[in-house]
Amino acid sequence: MAVNLPLPQAENLKPVAGVELGWAEAGIRKANRKDVLVVRLAEGSTVAGVFTRNRFCAAPVQVCREHLAAGRGIRALVINTGNANAGTGEPGLANARATCDAVAGALGIGADQVLPFSTGVILEPLPMDRLLAGVPKAIANAREDNWLAAAESIMTTDTQPKAASRTVQIGGKTVTLTGISKGAGMIRPNMATMLGFIATDATVAQPVLQALVSHAADHSFNSITIDGDTSTNDSFVLIATGRAGAPAIERADGAEFTALRDAVTSLAQELAQMIVRDGEGATKLMTIQVEGGRDVAECRQIAYAVAHSPLVKTAFYASDPNLGRILAAVGYAGVDDLDVGGVNLWLDDVWVARDGGRHPDYREEDGQRVMKQAEITVRIALGRGNATATVWTCDLSHDYVSINADYRS
Amino acid sequence: MAVNLPLPQAENLKPVAGVELGWAEAGIRKANRKDVLVVRLAEGSTVAGVFTRNRFCAAPVQVCREHLAAGRGIRALVINTGNANAGTGEPGLANARATCDAVAGALGIGADQVLPFSTGVILEPLPMDRLLAGVPKAIANAREDNWLAAAESIMTTDTQPKAASRTVQIGGKTVTLTGISKGAGMIRPNMATMLGFIATDATVAQPVLQALVSHAADHSFNSITIDGDTSTNDSFVLIATGRAGAPAIERADGAEFTALRDAVTSLAQELAQMIVRDGEGATKLMTIQVEGGRDVAECRQIAYAVAHSPLVKTAFYASDPNLGRILAAVGYAGVDDLDVGGVNLWLDDVWVARDGGRHPDYREEDGQRVMKQAEITVRIALGRGNATATVWTCDLSHDYVSINADYRS
Repeated sequence: MAVNLPLPQAENLKPVAGVELGWAEAGIRKANRKDVLVVRLAEGSTVAGVFTRNRFCAAPVQVCREHLAAGRGIRALVINTGNANAGTGEPGLANARATCDAVAGALGIGADQVLPFSTGVILEPLPMDRLLAGVPKAIANAREDNWLAAAESIMTTDTQPKAASRTVQIGGKTVTLTGISKGAGMIRPNMATMLGFIATDATVAQPVLQALVSHAADHSFNSITIDGDTSTNDSFVLIATGRAGAPAIERADGAEFTALRDAVTSLAQELAQMIVRDGEGATKLMTIQVEGGRDVAECRQIAYAVAHSPLVKTAFYASDPNLGRILAAVGYAGVDDLDVGGVNLWLDDVWVARDGGRHPDYREEDGQRVMKQAEITVRIALGRGNATATVWTCDLSHDYVSINADYRS
Repeated sequence: MAVNLPLPQAENLKPVAGVELGWAEAGIRKANRKDVLVVRLAEGSTVAGVFTRNRFCAAPVQVCREHLAAGRGIRALVINTGNANAGTGEPGLANARATCDAVAGALGIGADQVLPFSTGVILEPLPMDRLLAGVPKAIANAREDNWLAAAESIMTTDTQPKAASRTVQIGGKTVTLTGISKGAGMIRPNMATMLGFIATDATVAQPVLQALVSHAADHSFNSITIDGDTSTNDSFVLIATGRAGAPAIERADGAEFTALRDAVTSLAQELAQMIVRDGEGATKLMTIQVEGGRDVAECRQIAYAVAHSPLVKTAFYASDPNLGRILAAVGYAGVDDLDVGGVNLWLDDVWVARDGGRHPDYREEDGQRVMKQAEITVRIALGRGNATATVWTCDLSHDYVSINADYRS
């Protein structure tokens, strides 16, 4: 029941020179589904990432951080679904390293030039025999035009693959960006989401790439929530292969940097919103815009309180304009000196609450009309400053409960 | 589907000398249900309360605070269900005051000797004609043995009334305590819950009563959560009529104070747990015990993260020992310097995780056995101090979604 999420078409996903993607059906958790992905990167590529802030970060996330810090140049990514390799202690770390060793051996590169990623059930050991058997199969079918299959191979409870492309002119050259993402539950990313990858053939120095990935994450994956559960495995990685022949971007300013930053951020937003549109059980996409705050932090705090409220989410599911629930969430968000007498609330173009109370002209049928839509903007004006923040979320339906009650069965 | 919540029996609810309770069917929202309660208090009673910290606190909560501060001695409470009188601005305040005026006029007391309470839908005007017509009817049938009917008259989505009694010896006299509570959703009380009332015939000075109500709230209503939504109307009130002839308690220490405090706290815990047992759609009661923390605040922070996680709650609903979700919630709770290598996890007597990873002796069938129970204790040891905290919560079921999607229909 994804919300306005058309199936990506392979012909719309542009290959990125220097990036080859190969998949395998390794039977990690279930048979007959793509569950291992290997991404080969051309020599000289730069790679930057942001990762979960969950203290129980998964073993592969720890190994990613080590290998990026080693600085030898990343040449491959290996991703499995069906098992998160999280809460697995030292054996889990050894398994993540052994996976990198296998990829490195097959490709003739160093193990610290491989980044591992896992997604799936927490607290269970990775089935290494099946995973290691899948790696050479994935490498054998790696191709530049495999982006759609790559998106399919990282799905868990996703109902469909998530992928998109952009092009941007840098110094007279056309630069391509293509990305994939996955995730539908345990989604309240904190510094990155449950697996997002974007590759470009632009040429970008490593520190600039890190600035780009952080900026894009803050304005995309770090502004979505489905259930408020921050995953142990969130990772968002940006790759620049330098194969477009465009001028190198060496500093985090200037027109070329800005053009690439905007393209990366736009693509990351599209991929992040795809996750919300495909949120577990989602029937609606809600954009929560908070404005007039003293700082971005308090705007985000209020936006997330509204976005996480089970009562708000079930009211949207029911198309019931029980909008006092939104005010209640604004009130308990934890902004202790908030003067509710200055709060205004709109549902799309309908002015629901003025100065903290029901607007005298508000009519239930107007609220009802907007609530029936598949995409709704909730605008909350705090009237105490100029800061703004936007968070995207979805409703809470019977299907969310069914999906998560039955996840392992 | 309340969890191990037997229907209270009228004969087990002991009258409290000096407290008379009367109800009416006023048709506030629906016909043919008790929806107005008036509680008359004998002259000389002391009354103390704690109220919601939601910034959008309801009009009656504001009036309660004013009337308690006026200090003329509270002589009556008036409670309506079906409408929360919240998010209603100045007209809402005027309506709450008019309700007090009506009760005061009928009883020959001052309006500032009346405390008003409302619970129900937010953002809609109180139907004053029906409410004011109900007040004299409620006063007309006020009796000391009406506690069960009183509990029924404050229900909203509750499936059954919540009431209990205690007795305790104070200075050789038997003192009685009887209380009622209501609430099943929008439950994550912050300083009080969605309506709890306890009356005793002990004699207690006002400042001591305030200390008692705060202590009891912290260990009961402020330690439960159903959906993490803090209501605009949470109120918990403690009444002491002094009619038992027991020695007056003038100081917040000593054996008599302690005996009364423990009885009030025990009764408040029972009433609070009744709310969780009757949580919207609840099929299970979970006790989340966090120990070994540096301070109570971080223990509560982690306990609430686990208690609020939709993924944890749906796993309990499904009796699925997908226990990595608990570790993930511990990890994202926001205790930034938590060393997950020191975290241990038990489900009742089953040791699930040791030192941050799966316990080598943990067997899925042991977890499965406990998960099938109706009442489960989740014990989390942080291994970094001596502080502890306990939070009670329930699971997240299809029925929670149904109840809240259909709430106003």
